Amino acid sequence: MTDTISIEHAQSDRAYEIDSGFINAVLAAAEDGARDDLIALFEPLHAADIADVLEQVSATEREAIVALWGDEVDGEVFAEMDEDISVELMENLSDDIIGEAMRDLDTDDVVDLIEDMEEPQKERVLGSLEEADRAAVQQSLSYPEETAGRLMQRELVMAPTHWRVGDAIDEMRKSDDLPERFYDVVIVDPRLKPVGKVPLSSLMSHPRDTALTEIMDEEFRTIPVGQSQEDVAYAFNQYNMVSAPVVDEQDRLVGVITMDDAMEVLEEEAEEDIMLLAGVGDETLHDSTWNTTKLRFPWLAVNLVTSILASLVIAQFSSTIEAIVALAILMPIVASMGGNAGTQTLTVAVRALATKDLTPSNAWRVIRREMFVGLLNGCIFAVIIGIVGVIWFGTPMLGVVLGLAMIVNLLVAGLAGISVPIVLDKLGVDPALASSAFVTTVTDVVGFFVFLGLAGALLL
Amino acid sequence: MTDTISIEHAQSDRAYEIDSGFINAVLAAAEDGARDDLIALFEPLHAADIADVLEQVSATEREAIVALWGDEVDGEVFAEMDEDISVELMENLSDDIIGEAMRDLDTDDVVDLIEDMEEPQKERVLGSLEEADRAAVQQSLSYPEETAGRLMQRELVMAPTHWRVGDAIDEMRKSDDLPERFYDVVIVDPRLKPVGKVPLSSLMSHPRDTALTEIMDEEFRTIPVGQSQEDVAYAFNQYNMVSAPVVDEQDRLVGVITMDDAMEVLEEEAEEDIMLLAGVGDETLHDSTWNTTKLRFPWLAVNLVTSILASLVIAQFSSTIEAIVALAILMPIVASMGGNAGTQTLTVAVRALATKDLTPSNAWRVIRREMFVGLLNGCIFAVIIGIVGVIWFGTPMLGVVLGLAMIVNLLVAGLAGISVPIVLDKLGVDPALASSAFVTTVTDVVGFFVFLGLAGALLL
Repeated sequence: MTDTISIEHAQSDRAYEIDSGFINAVLAAAEDGARDDLIALFEPLHAADIADVLEQVSATEREAIVALWGDEVDGEVFAEMDEDISVELMENLSDDIIGEAMRDLDTDDVVDLIEDMEEPQKERVLGSLEEADRAAVQQSLSYPEETAGRLMQRELVMAPTHWRVGDAIDEMRKSDDLPERFYDVVIVDPRLKPVGKVPLSSLMSHPRDTALTEIMDEEFRTIPVGQSQEDVAYAFNQYNMVSAPVVDEQDRLVGVITMDDAMEVLEEEAEEDIMLLAGVGDETLHDSTWNTTKLRFPWLAVNLVTSILASLVIAQFSSTIEAIVALAILMPIVASMGGNAGTQTLTVAVRALATKDLTPSNAWRVIRREMFVGLLNGCIFAVIIGIVGVIWFGTPMLGVVLGLAMIVNLLVAGLAGISVPIVLDKLGVDPALASSAFVTTVTDVVGFFVFLGLAGALLL
Repeated sequence: MTDTISIEHAQSDRAYEIDSGFINAVLAAAEDGARDDLIALFEPLHAADIADVLEQVSATEREAIVALWGDEVDGEVFAEMDEDISVELMENLSDDIIGEAMRDLDTDDVVDLIEDMEEPQKERVLGSLEEADRAAVQQSLSYPEETAGRLMQRELVMAPTHWRVGDAIDEMRKSDDLPERFYDVVIVDPRLKPVGKVPLSSLMSHPRDTALTEIMDEEFRTIPVGQSQEDVAYAFNQYNMVSAPVVDEQDRLVGVITMDDAMEVLEEEAEEDIMLLAGVGDETLHDSTWNTTKLRFPWLAVNLVTSILASLVIAQFSSTIEAIVALAILMPIVASMGGNAGTQTLTVAVRALATKDLTPSNAWRVIRREMFVGLLNGCIFAVIIGIVGVIWFGTPMLGVVLGLAMIVNLLVAGLAGISVPIVLDKLGVDPALASSAFVTTVTDVVGFFVFLGLAGALLL
């Protein structure tokens, strides 16, 4: 452990957190222009931690630090940073420094970095690469975004079917352009079609004269180059893969995806679901106030429409409310309980769809369960809120109205919560995106309508 | 690719999804008692896919399938299944079949399986293990749940500091109890303290007489056995690690954690955040109606209290509402917008805390940003809703009241949304758990209070 100075490794809650003392030291070095101090501070740190430091300071501080760091800049740091920030930082660096930094990176990292850049800057970075790397990066960029083609790296180790363990080891010792890190040797036929792979651990544990085809993995999956990154991540997670060969339309080997890339996607996708469910787009902590405001606006606008709809429902009952003002006091309870119950159900549904646990095979059973759960909790809360209503306002019938409205709305919440995501998924819309707006509209409208309607019928 | 029969590998949306035709074939085989058919259907499938099939059928069907499968049962399938289900299934299997199934598994998978079992069943499974494995499993179980000790496997490859590449390769070829899959050789000093590790890919690419210490990884991290699994997963993700040695309090090597385990935890933790934010506990699609109802009840109960609090606020203004019934119609809008804006902010905050992007170093900057965002969106929506209010009810002052209440509530939503999670985190409470209840209470109470209060002051 080389970095005990700056990052706590204790078993505390704060393990791996960069402490603010360290950040202050970096800021002080930047302010004083103390380049040697800065380099010494960063030297023991992993690129990912340096990236975090840069993400946590303000934009101006960040620029000052990177400018001072100069030609010691480590390309990996850009790869580990939030893309917006690295794009912004790289704009101010000289061609030489960028070229130097890019040389540290595998092609998949370079692709990841430049795919979000504007054309002129993209050209500039591409121009700084060596010819072979540039061709590989351009090839990757020719695949659609968020597909296997963008995730894969071109650096890989392959062997023909007739090789033995000894051949493979000798060949690797001789080669001077092996990938920095690899886990399998991909076995290919003469047409470059992968027929299997041998994990390095098997290669290690067998005698030199063992045929590679004899020790190939039983489990072997290739990834089509056009597969969505979401499916790639799912496959890595589902089948515990560490690396997988990527093939083109003719089944020829074109690259390799490794688990670290898949892990990143898996996290991104879960993150996206969380954010979308809360009506937050693709935002980060580093976005400006104005950008954040813009990103949050659409969801709030949708919610405004939704709540105006609910108000229109209430407006239909204004004479009932005028007659019994207690209704105005109590009506948000039913709607709010429905909204919460609906959100519970839809969250479970959205995740189950994402992990492919909710399928046509079990959809009906799950829908039935959700309706029963809604009904059961509806009955329980009907009794509680009924009693509260009676005690508070002394009108037994008001308690009955509250209770009945609660049962109906929680049942509807369960039904809407499960069926809206399923239908959206069937229509090809990401269920995390719009489910929440639909479901709360339903529970608000039904909540107010049933409560006020029943009150009008039974209390007036 | 051995399983093109049953799992679609196309580049479609449905890649890796088990089709319902396949599930029907399995169910038909189980119903007819056609054991050979069942075995033939499962044979080409990955254990994780068989686990998914079993998860998607009903409990009765599941039991019938596993009973028919009999001594062909694959232990990996239990490891891949939701724990509740595997525990339930294993209860009905004979000791012989369990013993056979457990022999397929690494110790970390056995630990994962039995840690949730009741004492008698746990004893039974432990009894079915071979002596060495039992000792290893019991050792792991002696560490607290959700720590590195539970995640690690005991099977690993280590080498003393004086070995050369050739020694390591020869030794591995001779050994007959290598782990099924490994990625690094851990270099240990005579006291068993890890001093570095050599990735297999480096071992492959260097001549036999290279000293291992010469080609050790620069980046080298050990994981303390008591570290929380959340931090372990963070470290794997942050530092792109594939495997990491685990050490005890005396810094001695006690096991190894591999990336697939870390990936699982990472997914679990993101999942947990999503679920907690929506007020759903540790539930799965397979829970019974009754269990699901119980799991969802607490959150709904909290919400009931919250909404009764909001109603109490409204009740203070019943004479105002009696005078102007339009207020009852419009009041849910302000509260609902506040709730949504607050949820947006707190979701971003909860995730940023989980990924250690939100720290004391940038907390103030982020808080300031959130307040500005709230204020900005508040002003925009104040204008919109103000106009709506005026057009709808023809009272300009009503528009002013709506607008002012919107500004205040969205500002408060931003402030509460960012500060509640930060404070909970400081207090050592999982911010995903309780933030949402606190924040919506604040936005409801403030929303109703400001709107009705202003209306009382300005309109009456």
